Amino acid sequence: MHLDDRLATPLYQQLFDQLRCDIEEGARPEGSRLPPIRSLAADLGCARNTVENAYALLSQEGYVRSRPGSGYIVQNVAYLQADPDRAAQPPESLLGADAGRVRYDFTYGNLEPGTFPAAAWRAITDDILLSVEAVGCDAYNDPFGEEGLRAAIAWRLTTQRGIDCTPSQIVVQGGTQTSVQNLLALFDASRDRVAMEDPGYDGVRTVVERARFSLAPCRVGLGTDTFVADLEASGARLAYLTPSSQFPTCRAMPTDTREAVLRWAERTDAYLLEDDYCRDFRYRERSLPPLASMDTRGRVVYMGTFSKSLSPALRMNYLVLPEPLLERWREAFANSYSPVPWLNQQVLARFMTDGSWDRHLRRVQAKNRRKYETLTRVLRATMGNDVEMMENGTGLHLLVRVRDGRPQDELVRIAAEAGVAVYPTKKYWMDPAGHLSSTVLVGFSSIREEDIGPGIEALARAWFE
Amino acid sequence: MHLDDRLATPLYQQLFDQLRCDIEEGARPEGSRLPPIRSLAADLGCARNTVENAYALLSQEGYVRSRPGSGYIVQNVAYLQADPDRAAQPPESLLGADAGRVRYDFTYGNLEPGTFPAAAWRAITDDILLSVEAVGCDAYNDPFGEEGLRAAIAWRLTTQRGIDCTPSQIVVQGGTQTSVQNLLALFDASRDRVAMEDPGYDGVRTVVERARFSLAPCRVGLGTDTFVADLEASGARLAYLTPSSQFPTCRAMPTDTREAVLRWAERTDAYLLEDDYCRDFRYRERSLPPLASMDTRGRVVYMGTFSKSLSPALRMNYLVLPEPLLERWREAFANSYSPVPWLNQQVLARFMTDGSWDRHLRRVQAKNRRKYETLTRVLRATMGNDVEMMENGTGLHLLVRVRDGRPQDELVRIAAEAGVAVYPTKKYWMDPAGHLSSTVLVGFSSIREEDIGPGIEALARAWFE
Repeated sequence: MHLDDRLATPLYQQLFDQLRCDIEEGARPEGSRLPPIRSLAADLGCARNTVENAYALLSQEGYVRSRPGSGYIVQNVAYLQADPDRAAQPPESLLGADAGRVRYDFTYGNLEPGTFPAAAWRAITDDILLSVEAVGCDAYNDPFGEEGLRAAIAWRLTTQRGIDCTPSQIVVQGGTQTSVQNLLALFDASRDRVAMEDPGYDGVRTVVERARFSLAPCRVGLGTDTFVADLEASGARLAYLTPSSQFPTCRAMPTDTREAVLRWAERTDAYLLEDDYCRDFRYRERSLPPLASMDTRGRVVYMGTFSKSLSPALRMNYLVLPEPLLERWREAFANSYSPVPWLNQQVLARFMTDGSWDRHLRRVQAKNRRKYETLTRVLRATMGNDVEMMENGTGLHLLVRVRDGRPQDELVRIAAEAGVAVYPTKKYWMDPAGHLSSTVLVGFSSIREEDIGPGIEALARAWFE
Repeated sequence: MHLDDRLATPLYQQLFDQLRCDIEEGARPEGSRLPPIRSLAADLGCARNTVENAYALLSQEGYVRSRPGSGYIVQNVAYLQADPDRAAQPPESLLGADAGRVRYDFTYGNLEPGTFPAAAWRAITDDILLSVEAVGCDAYNDPFGEEGLRAAIAWRLTTQRGIDCTPSQIVVQGGTQTSVQNLLALFDASRDRVAMEDPGYDGVRTVVERARFSLAPCRVGLGTDTFVADLEASGARLAYLTPSSQFPTCRAMPTDTREAVLRWAERTDAYLLEDDYCRDFRYRERSLPPLASMDTRGRVVYMGTFSKSLSPALRMNYLVLPEPLLERWREAFANSYSPVPWLNQQVLARFMTDGSWDRHLRRVQAKNRRKYETLTRVLRATMGNDVEMMENGTGLHLLVRVRDGRPQDELVRIAAEAGVAVYPTKKYWMDPAGHLSSTVLVGFSSIREEDIGPGIEALARAWFE
């Protein structure tokens, strides 16, 4: 190994690159140890800091893991062979010492630090900025999204989700809320109502309300008949739905309900906005095919996201528009610019087609599956019959209902006092009075795998001891 | 020099980095020649393609310039010492041969290929993605924008534009249209009208119309009194204005008109949206201070952009909200996510504070000044009294009115037949019948400096010979 300080590439990055190469090529096999920081710095004649930064990066990217007393150990970079022994021992509980501070955060939405594939993203970004393609940075670009990205998305939807679509039906957007805001521009707030599941995703409800549309709640907790009856009575022109894993209850919409909502849309000339936000995360049986794959009459707008699997900070998602709405969209946005930066779209397109996406997604899926299994197992083991879990083997959270009837605010407060953050669910109900009492949201997208066990144990002690 | 194919950094990038270092450090002085591609490839034992790519990049970044027969010559990288001799000889006219194709494109908005500071952007991106800061990619971030970027913007506005604002008043947005669309969410389409300059920027008009607000045109061509009278009669709650260089007429709003519109807003509880899109580009006297700097009552929303100086493909701009609207914005967008990717904001913040921004802006300003001077000089020299130029020493375009009264569609068509693209202006008028006849838009942001002379000469021949 050697470092060259005449290169523009920083020394720690050069070192990271070389070590990564070695690991990927097997020159440093799984289980082997990286040289101690001090001695490698001396060998290379560089600062310790340089080696530390390179090691930190390797660790962040999953190439090595640091073990107290053992230094940095090369990991299995095939990623997929889940290694249950790998999880570190839960740290000693310090809850008494720092009560009031969040020690275990079961938040929903954010991803675990280190999830973002920074090395691959960086390499592709470099490559694009160094190529003649970079002239895309100097111009306004396709308002509907870059062709390569739309093609990559359409190919995945067609081959993996059974959604028969072309790249021209896809519009690349800046996140769920932005895309809903834009979609609503095709409707008229003074006339058209929007139906929403109740409870439902408050992030979309905010957008609909901000655009001054009136909302028609459709109750999801009282069975299919009630839900469909609410929808039929709604008079809505657009219905926002989460069929693959209803948010926040995690229920999958049954096949007969799917058929009923499609018939409703056809009969009333309404549209269905299918938010398929968590199809990538399914831990038991296969999921039902998306509504969009059942739609033969052009009634479904399909919405997909990269926030749950890649990065919530990337601000990129997409809509697949059925023909009638595509026309309206083209008219409404013909004189508009794309909401998503060109470079980010180019990088994502390359990421999706050069194999990085598959590798990354499998890694994240495997990790979330382990977390899901740990969470449900520890919940059962520690709280047993004291709670009911609402979950469906999908997504990145579950709901926990405490059977003794304590109100959710109290449950959240007691948990917080023990250093555990779980979240109230009231805001997902349009009528907060109708909310499921004694129920809190427990997310696992952001918490570290090894913190789940001790976190739930601390929660059980706080709630039930 | 040496290349190492064990590094993850591509070979052409390694070569580019080394040559760039040499040039910046003076080891390869201005005027010296890079080695011929073939011989350098042989010396380094790499493919010719590698050297070609590295040279193309150096050329794109302005480090070298290729001259037919002389190879690649190292340029003055201080950038600012404008070198009038440097412009290449205009190529022989081939207009006869390829009539019907656009040979000289005087479009507006897009930037000249190579404007984007790809090398600096890449270096900063690398640095951030390699640092622990990259965990920002794994989370939802500040819906109003990253703190560092807002601070950098506020500092510039305070110190350079006399706008007394704090970072907390700034919201980072995804472009002019997105930010106007969001701003309109604070108003009520069923009740509030929006006043716009007529003629005015159609991109904003589209957004206002799409949001179903009724529009009140305020005529700008008939003097201050008419404009102010139109505004007074508008009943508008919000007025969209371009005071520093009215789009598309390039007029600066006189001081008494500025005072009148501020008084109008104070008196009627209305707001002024000041789109200061081209303050960076002023080629003669200093510009008047922005409306926002005169505003003592919190009536002005100031809007700035990075599209004209940095990249239209970056999709980033910002609003400075006065206190009363800031409250409303916080309420409306409290549950929303940022429309702008975290990484892009981080990179821009660093770019604005590490000196890159100043260097880049001076380079772009110097280049646009040269283009402006060439364009106005050649127009006067070739068309003299046959045309009237509407320009004010600002911006990135001017209007040209042909005195013989030919309609603009004919002027555009004749130009196109000669391979010159100039643009109709009719769409900027709310009532197209009232448009300034015989007037076309001639932009210079995108065309290469050395094409301006021959392009205008070709235009003169087509129009007047």
